[in-house]
Amino acid sequence: MAKKKKSELSHFDSAGAARMVDVGGKSATRREAEASAFVAMSKKVLTELDKNPKGNPLEVARVAGIVAAKRTDELIPLCHSLPLAFVDVRMKVERDGILVTAVAATTAENGVEMEAMVAASVAALTIYDMCKALDKGMSIREVRLERKTGGKSGDWRRK
Amino acid sequence: MAKKKKSELSHFDSAGAARMVDVGGKSATRREAEASAFVAMSKKVLTELDKNPKGNPLEVARVAGIVAAKRTDELIPLCHSLPLAFVDVRMKVERDGILVTAVAATTAENGVEMEAMVAASVAALTIYDMCKALDKGMSIREVRLERKTGGKSGDWRRK
Amino acid sequence: MAKKKKSELSHFDSAGAARMVDVGGKSATRREAEASAFVAMSKKVLTELDKNPKGNPLEVARVAGIVAAKRTDELIPLCHSLPLAFVDVRMKVERDGILVTAVAATTAENGVEMEAMVAASVAALTIYDMCKALDKGMSIREVRLERKTGGKSGDWRRK
Amino acid sequence: MAKKKKSELSHFDSAGAARMVDVGGKSATRREAEASAFVAMSKKVLTELDKNPKGNPLEVARVAGIVAAKRTDELIPLCHSLPLAFVDVRMKVERDGILVTAVAATTAENGVEMEAMVAASVAALTIYDMCKALDKGMSIREVRLERKTGGKSGDWRRK
Amino acid sequence: MAKKKKSELSHFDSAGAARMVDVGGKSATRREAEASAFVAMSKKVLTELDKNPKGNPLEVARVAGIVAAKRTDELIPLCHSLPLAFVDVRMKVERDGILVTAVAATTAENGVEMEAMVAASVAALTIYDMCKALDKGMSIREVRLERKTGGKSGDWRRK
Amino acid sequence: MAKKKKSELSHFDSAGAARMVDVGGKSATRREAEASAFVAMSKKVLTELDKNPKGNPLEVARVAGIVAAKRTDELIPLCHSLPLAFVDVRMKVERDGILVTAVAATTAENGVEMEAMVAASVAALTIYDMCKALDKGMSIREVRLERKTGGKSGDWRRK
Repeated sequence: MAKKKKSELSHFDSAGAARMVDVGGKSATRREAEASAFVAMSKKVLTELDKNPKGNPLEVARVAGIVAAKRTDELIPLCHSLPLAFVDVRMKVERDGILVTAVAATTAENGVEMEAMVAASVAALTIYDMCKALDKGMSIREVRLERKTGGKSGDWRRK
Repeated sequence: MAKKKKSELSHFDSAGAARMVDVGGKSATRREAEASAFVAMSKKVLTELDKNPKGNPLEVARVAGIVAAKRTDELIPLCHSLPLAFVDVRMKVERDGILVTAVAATTAENGVEMEAMVAASVAALTIYDMCKALDKGMSIREVRLERKTGGKSGDWRRK
Repeated sequence: MAKKKKSELSHFDSAGAARMVDVGGKSATRREAEASAFVAMSKKVLTELDKNPKGNPLEVARVAGIVAAKRTDELIPLCHSLPLAFVDVRMKVERDGILVTAVAATTAENGVEMEAMVAASVAALTIYDMCKALDKGMSIREVRLERKTGGKSGDWRRK
Repeated sequence: MAKKKKSELSHFDSAGAARMVDVGGKSATRREAEASAFVAMSKKVLTELDKNPKGNPLEVARVAGIVAAKRTDELIPLCHSLPLAFVDVRMKVERDGILVTAVAATTAENGVEMEAMVAASVAALTIYDMCKALDKGMSIREVRLERKTGGKSGDWRRK
Repeated sequence: MAKKKKSELSHFDSAGAARMVDVGGKSATRREAEASAFVAMSKKVLTELDKNPKGNPLEVARVAGIVAAKRTDELIPLCHSLPLAFVDVRMKVERDGILVTAVAATTAENGVEMEAMVAASVAALTIYDMCKALDKGMSIREVRLERKTGGKSGDWRRK
Repeated sequence: MAKKKKSELSHFDSAGAARMVDVGGKSATRREAEASAFVAMSKKVLTELDKNPKGNPLEVARVAGIVAAKRTDELIPLCHSLPLAFVDVRMKVERDGILVTAVAATTAENGVEMEAMVAASVAALTIYDMCKALDKGMSIREVRLERKTGGKSGDWRRK
């Protein structure tokens, strides 16, 4: 049974050393994933954001998240390179912070969960960077996968 | 007063458009920063980690975090490029997940808060990537700055 | 009618925010593009180029353009990553400067116009870099698409 | 005399092969450079830009230019790596196109002309990318250095 | 006959200038390659490696090799970008050094020989970096292709 | 004594985990390093090289080596980022192959041994790539440091 569980951790070979999973036998199908991150900030910082006439911090963060998604394979060592068909990053100003939502899609042999996670993380980090002069105490809460579709393991949605 | 607050958001010029802050007049002094991230995971996933004889997922994540810190300026649009004197990423297995701590240091005109934040985030994302086959429901909680030293704004420590 | 025109700007979503176009429904067909740039320089600088026995500035610039084409998706935020089947950069010494021509090709869901434009631009910038010690007043004129073939919008050729 | 002229092309060694100039003996002083590029477009495309409520194409292009400036040494083979103290990219909508102006500054052993040229070029290419669905015939005209200050060769300004 | 031989050097066009080979007419089939490198080191350095309880230098080097393989097209100017289906790097401690073996695989229009060669080289360089404080005299011997399968030129195995 | 030896392996912390060495206390002085690599090839391949009128494979390889040196910190996980003052790559055609020599220099807190090693390796790999159509059996022999000057450990020269 220990053996069975180890095989589930597909990034590990039989000797326990990390390697990239071989996706050569998988089929290239449409796969999507959505991830989110929440940048918690004080009312003071949020108010400043609202006053900014062009909403730029969020726009710069959106661009940063989209660009980072395309470089996921450089950042996450055992991630496969894949051509993204689509990436989008949205921001929603909430009462106590900014909710970042990232969607990624591809037609490839493997999923895009990490691309969505990276896009949400880097967009959130960029918001932090652009507002940290006002409050270094902000934090990025709950970077997490919301849903994925396609692939052998099928659809998944956070409960 | 609104004007005074805007000047605090030093990434923005007088017209409200984002730009990189000019650090030309700042002095090159020793600066350090420490950030943390927490990867929450079920007992089942944690137990599998413990059984792995070489502790590899955490070692791969440490390397990923260190390498990412050196590329912070590529990921965060308005961050300055700077030569890091030091980066380290540590992992601590806790009861309900992994605590990632990243430290960065430099002797430069600007701080290394973002380098520490990026190192902690990418290390946490790598742990997620390597364990997601067991549980996609894991989340990255509380990516945050713990402390910084040096620079004009002085020392800061999370309360 | 305003709505119709907005949909033509396919990089923008319905709310006017920039995003990457979803190419998931497009078919992977052969696509080619050719772009050019002209580096205008004084007779003095051109003569020096001619005297150089190995023609190196142009050869370094050709390599720079080819390498840059492969990184187009990192430079242009909303560009898709795609596997280039072919890139070539040619130089032609003319009476008042250097004409750079770049060709890119792929079999993919989207076009390679930007890859050809980036290759021509970076090759021209490299020529500028290597000759600017002689004359900083050189300029890069007319970076432009010359033709494209393939894809839903069909063939196009500059008039 | 031919020899004297060759030594002016400081990227070339005595045998005519390209190499990176040794800046080890130079002093680290404040250096600035400003470059510009002009994206010529039809009135139709310009009008669409104006109608866009958030001015996003120009904002995405500004971010792209700033990020690219930090990667100049990766794009231009014989350019030195240097820590930029400042980069800014501005857009001005004119009657027949968009004028892009980029400023870069550093305190280092070598100049930032190429950083300013790369920022202006990549911002202009990004505008082209985001508007090419409306008109592939747009062109990027006159990427050029406007002025530089600092360094052994002193100040320079386009006549 | 000279002409025939030149056509074998497929990276060169008819005028002898380097260019990227057009793989547009090739078919996307499974291709694999294996390369090796040997890091020769003194018994003293090897013994220190053995004593290290976690075997980390080799693990860091494995990660470095895997990540570098994915960036082969950025390092080798005329290499095509391709999505790797699989990369693995193994280490074997021998009597007078470390044998590094790298395997790469893809389903694409061109081979992965260079991806395997780059992975082996960068892993070996990383071992050198991590042990050079003990002995700068170590050397990397025999970076070479061991075998390749698939593609028009068929299978090949080192004699 | 075991403890003393461990401290020599400065990439490792007291618990044996890899980390980046803190160079904060070191002084920024001139440092140089020279490395070499030898690409062994059959007479047949060498003759083809000689016949090529422009000597391009070696010129492309030189550019590749110079560009790679500037990205050493991205390839070698625990290497520091540093601004190179100078890089050069030379080729010498010998009886049974090509000797690649790379020199790197900086004024920084740490040495440039790895920058020289990476430049020599990537130049050699590029030669392999450009000639492998003629003979896959070529190998890269003896990538090694030839000498270094400057820094706390002083000068070193291969015996």
